[in-house]
Amino acid sequence: MTNTATLTAVGLGPGDPELITLKGLRALQMADVLFVPQSRDGDQSLALRIAEPWIDRARQTVVALPLPMTRDASQLRPAWRAAAETIVAELGADRQGAYLLLGDPLLYGTFVYLWRELTALQAPVAVRIIPGVTSFAAAAAAGGMPLAMSNERLIVVPASYETDAATLRRLLNDFETVVLMKAGAALPAIVAALEELDLLDHALYAERVGMPEELIARDLRALDPQRRPYLSLVIVRREDMP
Amino acid sequence: MTNTATLTAVGLGPGDPELITLKGLRALQMADVLFVPQSRDGDQSLALRIAEPWIDRARQTVVALPLPMTRDASQLRPAWRAAAETIVAELGADRQGAYLLLGDPLLYGTFVYLWRELTALQAPVAVRIIPGVTSFAAAAAAGGMPLAMSNERLIVVPASYETDAATLRRLLNDFETVVLMKAGAALPAIVAALEELDLLDHALYAERVGMPEELIARDLRALDPQRRPYLSLVIVRREDMP
Repeated sequence: MTNTATLTAVGLGPGDPELITLKGLRALQMADVLFVPQSRDGDQSLALRIAEPWIDRARQTVVALPLPMTRDASQLRPAWRAAAETIVAELGADRQGAYLLLGDPLLYGTFVYLWRELTALQAPVAVRIIPGVTSFAAAAAAGGMPLAMSNERLIVVPASYETDAATLRRLLNDFETVVLMKAGAALPAIVAALEELDLLDHALYAERVGMPEELIARDLRALDPQRRPYLSLVIVRREDMP
Repeated sequence: MTNTATLTAVGLGPGDPELITLKGLRALQMADVLFVPQSRDGDQSLALRIAEPWIDRARQTVVALPLPMTRDASQLRPAWRAAAETIVAELGADRQGAYLLLGDPLLYGTFVYLWRELTALQAPVAVRIIPGVTSFAAAAAAGGMPLAMSNERLIVVPASYETDAATLRRLLNDFETVVLMKAGAALPAIVAALEELDLLDHALYAERVGMPEELIARDLRALDPQRRPYLSLVIVRREDMP
């Protein structure tokens, strides 16, 4: 036990509880308080669901941090400030905390927003970050698709910003592999673009990878575009499979 | 025990033995035979060094697969074919094997070459892939640098191919975060380019991240460019830290 309050951001990986690292598991199990982001719609926290097998509820406190599902910064900033204040109050002078989140803490994770507020508060909390397996690495492993070999280049983009055929063509001209994150709502546009580029056979779709509801598909046309969740991605490779 | 020979590619993560996933650790410990790539110059296999704490040498066989350190495909292809043949012979009809490698198996890993030869041999070996933490995620965590937030885009390129200021400027104009892998030999060119773009304060250098010899630096000018190893990378972010 140290005599300083500590917050460790733990990347849980994309969904399979067994994809946590040993280092992340130890930080989780050492913590007195576990903080999990919670959207306000009352759904169970996904991070909590993934971490559940590793939590000892007789010994550890779980604190949900309510966060609005919005891109409106004016709403988000106060929510993160409130979350940081909750963490400071819970940790007090010397408790150990872990902030649990999907994937890797620094790749499209929520941790950076929280960290910024802890810094702004000049909170007496030492911050540590433990990296995690990204969803696209797990999707590539599940679907058997290389991400990059030798001198190849990889790009990771949010699908909602890069789905027309012209943009995809330009990206695939410069990069051997394109990962389109958060593909759900953009799937019809992605399929149309891949069709136009004659690249449908070079794509892999993955949703909720590692979770019980995991879906991995090579035929993107067979997917119902109305029912695709936010936790989904498409990997496109210019070259054929090895 | 299944009645089929199985080869599981296990991403060990970048260097810290504790950054292996639980799933990877279980596959490693279940294996009868552990295969590790070995460069011909007699150096110890890095993968073996990272995995060593988890190996039970009384029960498990370790087989080094000699691989030439060359980009010459005419030399590499026969070496991978020989490695695949070794694996097939060692696994026989029903043994469990694990192929251990740094980082993630599908991101600049050696596994894809081996897999291609196993496929070409029509080897009666079931292949599984367990993803791992990438070196750049671990470097970002160690240095406290975000990789991507919200709608940002991340690119990962081998440094040796993208180091002049014009290329870097174009990449940083289009993408919020650029990861330059295998930065060692290219470091002087990278520093010159970052200086020209006035981005030296936006860069993070990491070598052998997670290993005892780890070096993380924010001041790239202070590094001796003559002594930088292959296992090194630079992350450049256009935006300031949060």
